[in-house]
Amino acid sequence: MTQTLAETPVTSPSADAAQWLQDFGAALARGDIAAALAAFADDCYWRDLVAFTWNLHTSEGKDAIAAMLQANLARVAPSGWKVQDQPSHADGVTESWFTFETAVARGRGHLRLKNGKCWTLLTVMSELKGFEEKKGTRRVLGAEHGARRNRTTWLERRQQEEAALGYTEQPYCVVIGGGQGGIGLAARLKRLGVSTLVIEQNARAGDSWRKRYKSLCLHDPVWYDHMPYLPFPDDWPVFTPKDKVGDWLEMYTKVMELNYWSSTEAKSASFDETSKTWTVTVERRHPDGRLETVVLRPTQLVFALGVSGFPSVPAIAGAETFEGDQHHSSAHPGGEAYAGKHCVVLGSNNSAHDICADLWEHGADVTMVQRSSTHIVKSDSLMELALGGLYSEEAVANGVTTDKADLLFASLPFKIMHSFHVPVYEAIQQRDKDFYARLQKAGFLLDFGDDGSGLFMKYLRRGSGYYIDVGASELVADGSIHLKSGVNIEQIKPRSVVLTDGTELPADLLVYATGYGSMNGWVASIVSPEVADRVGKCWGLGSGTTKDPGPWEGELRNMWKPTQQPQLWFHGGNLHQSRHYSQYLALQLKARMEGIATPVYGQGAVHHLR
Amino acid sequence: MTQTLAETPVTSPSADAAQWLQDFGAALARGDIAAALAAFADDCYWRDLVAFTWNLHTSEGKDAIAAMLQANLARVAPSGWKVQDQPSHADGVTESWFTFETAVARGRGHLRLKNGKCWTLLTVMSELKGFEEKKGTRRVLGAEHGARRNRTTWLERRQQEEAALGYTEQPYCVVIGGGQGGIGLAARLKRLGVSTLVIEQNARAGDSWRKRYKSLCLHDPVWYDHMPYLPFPDDWPVFTPKDKVGDWLEMYTKVMELNYWSSTEAKSASFDETSKTWTVTVERRHPDGRLETVVLRPTQLVFALGVSGFPSVPAIAGAETFEGDQHHSSAHPGGEAYAGKHCVVLGSNNSAHDICADLWEHGADVTMVQRSSTHIVKSDSLMELALGGLYSEEAVANGVTTDKADLLFASLPFKIMHSFHVPVYEAIQQRDKDFYARLQKAGFLLDFGDDGSGLFMKYLRRGSGYYIDVGASELVADGSIHLKSGVNIEQIKPRSVVLTDGTELPADLLVYATGYGSMNGWVASIVSPEVADRVGKCWGLGSGTTKDPGPWEGELRNMWKPTQQPQLWFHGGNLHQSRHYSQYLALQLKARMEGIATPVYGQGAVHHLR
Repeated sequence: MTQTLAETPVTSPSADAAQWLQDFGAALARGDIAAALAAFADDCYWRDLVAFTWNLHTSEGKDAIAAMLQANLARVAPSGWKVQDQPSHADGVTESWFTFETAVARGRGHLRLKNGKCWTLLTVMSELKGFEEKKGTRRVLGAEHGARRNRTTWLERRQQEEAALGYTEQPYCVVIGGGQGGIGLAARLKRLGVSTLVIEQNARAGDSWRKRYKSLCLHDPVWYDHMPYLPFPDDWPVFTPKDKVGDWLEMYTKVMELNYWSSTEAKSASFDETSKTWTVTVERRHPDGRLETVVLRPTQLVFALGVSGFPSVPAIAGAETFEGDQHHSSAHPGGEAYAGKHCVVLGSNNSAHDICADLWEHGADVTMVQRSSTHIVKSDSLMELALGGLYSEEAVANGVTTDKADLLFASLPFKIMHSFHVPVYEAIQQRDKDFYARLQKAGFLLDFGDDGSGLFMKYLRRGSGYYIDVGASELVADGSIHLKSGVNIEQIKPRSVVLTDGTELPADLLVYATGYGSMNGWVASIVSPEVADRVGKCWGLGSGTTKDPGPWEGELRNMWKPTQQPQLWFHGGNLHQSRHYSQYLALQLKARMEGIATPVYGQGAVHHLR
Repeated sequence: MTQTLAETPVTSPSADAAQWLQDFGAALARGDIAAALAAFADDCYWRDLVAFTWNLHTSEGKDAIAAMLQANLARVAPSGWKVQDQPSHADGVTESWFTFETAVARGRGHLRLKNGKCWTLLTVMSELKGFEEKKGTRRVLGAEHGARRNRTTWLERRQQEEAALGYTEQPYCVVIGGGQGGIGLAARLKRLGVSTLVIEQNARAGDSWRKRYKSLCLHDPVWYDHMPYLPFPDDWPVFTPKDKVGDWLEMYTKVMELNYWSSTEAKSASFDETSKTWTVTVERRHPDGRLETVVLRPTQLVFALGVSGFPSVPAIAGAETFEGDQHHSSAHPGGEAYAGKHCVVLGSNNSAHDICADLWEHGADVTMVQRSSTHIVKSDSLMELALGGLYSEEAVANGVTTDKADLLFASLPFKIMHSFHVPVYEAIQQRDKDFYARLQKAGFLLDFGDDGSGLFMKYLRRGSGYYIDVGASELVADGSIHLKSGVNIEQIKPRSVVLTDGTELPADLLVYATGYGSMNGWVASIVSPEVADRVGKCWGLGSGTTKDPGPWEGELRNMWKPTQQPQLWFHGGNLHQSRHYSQYLALQLKARMEGIATPVYGQGAVHHLR
């Protein structure tokens, strides 16, 4: 027995991971980059969120990892690498969670080993030493026990803070946009003691949801949608209706004690190179109707205006002659007024489908004009085959908390992410082949992305080109929603539109479901075109696929990380992204506020302006 | 080896508990009450919350258990007794969690074994079969996928429900009182699909906290105070300031979608013996100022008005001649107006101390008149020695969730509960002996309860007689708050009060911190004195200790369980009690709504009227 054991050493995922971390940590501790590199496979990726690079950055391959370590290792001084939870092994890959420290922070991460060598490594900063959130055992007492004269209460302090902020005291950070993104980021900054003011155009937090067309529900399921710190109760619907999201955000803003100016519009902002502060002019409408111009002077300025910029409306000949209603999808009021009317919807993505279905439900005669192929995936297939492993009741039961799911999602390097998705969408195509056949028979132009990687890659690469089917596709398939595909609108007449194939469609309503510009469009409008071009476009990976031109960036452009304009940041994305990446943006802002050195590694050049 | 094992059977807490449950379950399954009784020690208690008795009931000793089983076993038909989690063993006692089923419900419980026999048994109903909460995998979809004409949205359905309830549709249950108790109960009933309307006198949910004196914070720590379903975030203060509690309750009411009429007062209620429904007349103030009288006809009526009844103010000769301010503690506005004034506070419990300290902080000259001895315990000692094992950050870290803590708390039969508390308060007396000595030196009359069992037993038995010290006691000890103890006020003059020892104290303000009547006082006022006397007093165990006259009841009178008035219920208590017991009250109401037979076992006679 003893001999046999000696000849075939007993290894386990735990032992493998622990050994790897020990060797790797030791190599880093002695500054031995060669030894550290030896721990990686030839095909390797190290994604770092703030911990090593003060950036969101992926080093692809050994040379890139070597360069990253050369630049950062001495300063970061990582130590204390420890396995966390139980490592696992499947299909030749050992996976492990771990924790570590740097000179200034505590971090954690995720590791995939193949044959004892690292394939993917994720390192993220969790908290800055000395600036931990006051939670759990660190929470504040609340009551000030003992007796003291001139004590102020919680309410008085809150009222004083609200009265002073923006007037006699300047916030360190101004967040333009008080939707889910701005609210979640502000909650994180509040916990870190970063004085923050959120500016929101609408009258109430949550209105950005409430004001959309009335049938709207979240397209992502509840497990994917939690806000930071305060998960939804366990009876929350799978797909939250828009007004319910709105109410949740409003209450969240209140109980998280965020400084939130509603009915307030950012008019202009400029950066003073000398004082290194922003001047942000806002118009604030008070509850009594008074409109006040307030000049704010924050150090940091965050644009948190969703996932996109201004609505894009194509210039079509004759548009000015149209006698019916015409508006961009973002301004669509819902179908109530259009029963019996001829409606034309230009576009075939999410909004186009939702609006077509809503118009049909209200008894309109509706035609979708599909210009190019679109990726369709049924909501339940997406939930079960694509999201279920990370975000579902089953995942929760398996111990995949929201926090872990977010990190697992983040642990896949963008360079190879599509390869994880392709088989999922192959399975979806198989599962729903009758559905897809019906759609194609109706003339619908289908695709699954240039490389078959489906929805999420389209979302990341181009933010468009797909519909998560919650019912409209059957209406397209059975002709309830009329379809004209492979065409565009060539001309608009007073009561009709003429398509590029010569067809003329009667039209009382024309909806432009034609997407949005990039988020730096907001910067062009509020700061200046020059600054917008200096930072360049947001989103996109540079994959070279349709509408995602290269060069390869390796990370999403400009999101949640330093831009080429000092002290200007972009925050946004869906609820999952806003929740997860707000923590890294908050840590970057906090570190700057506290004067911690934050040398940014690997910041890319700008290749795409607007 | 085999022989040795046979001679000394290997037992473990797990095996012991599993064996006991198996034997006990088998005895019950075959209706063998004698065998079931044999599983109990001579000194034994079985506390049942709804599962066996449709009551909150403790059977004390084998005879009582035999009687309870004789009456209920055949109907309840319990089965499937299974150990849950890991049993433990310490100090000769094996403890185990378990689950079981009855004919109509699923339940769980807690077991303490001594020498293989049961010492304490807790059985609670968790959910009614077929009427489970729609949570987790049962949660609703939210979005109605597919296309259908005339669909209504979540918002429209909410608005329709709010418009109809109380007018064209009658709630099954009306809850009078929309503080923490009414709100938490309504949240539970909402989940069970019991149509409920909460009536609240104040303008906004949470006002019952906001309107108290401004320095007020919760006296219990955060781990003890969670509402059902939506725990506070992990940075919530240990002791929540009152306005922050108010905001949380307001948010909670909104996101839980409770039907909540604020600015509404219940004027009268009567029970119709023929139709078996209530007629409840309320005055509802609408946001536009209009006052509307609405007649509600619910089947069930719940009084959820805190822990007590009307303020008690003693009749003192000359009170009508007083030229200063005089009011009950519940009406005290705070100390702002009393700087430099002579203030006399009659009473020495929580409110008296808080108000004295508040007056002192505002520069008043304040005297506390202590009529009889009071139990004082320092807040931090209470947290660390009395509550810490169940409700603290450490408890959470040890896996004692709020849910488990509540059940453990409930698992101690009232008959022997004091014996668990006596050693804790002996330790507290030792730890804080210098503090107590200073208080006694200042003349303060101290006690620890008739049997030394301290604060929580006083709270349960009489709801009075104590102060959780958060600072006022040092002011008493050092004379900052003047103290007159062992006396009462004999006479009130225009600008002074005369004490029973002949002392005359100048007085610009007189605060009666003299407590409250029993909760059935509300019934006397809103329903009738006859019904109030039929149900009798609330709270108290009948322990025969000071202010808790016998006979022994074994459970708290009238709280969360059937009363002698059909379809009339009392809900309330501190945040812990409201949270925990609301689930049993909600299940009792749901069962009645669904027509499930709910024969109540062991309902006590009424011995104390008002």
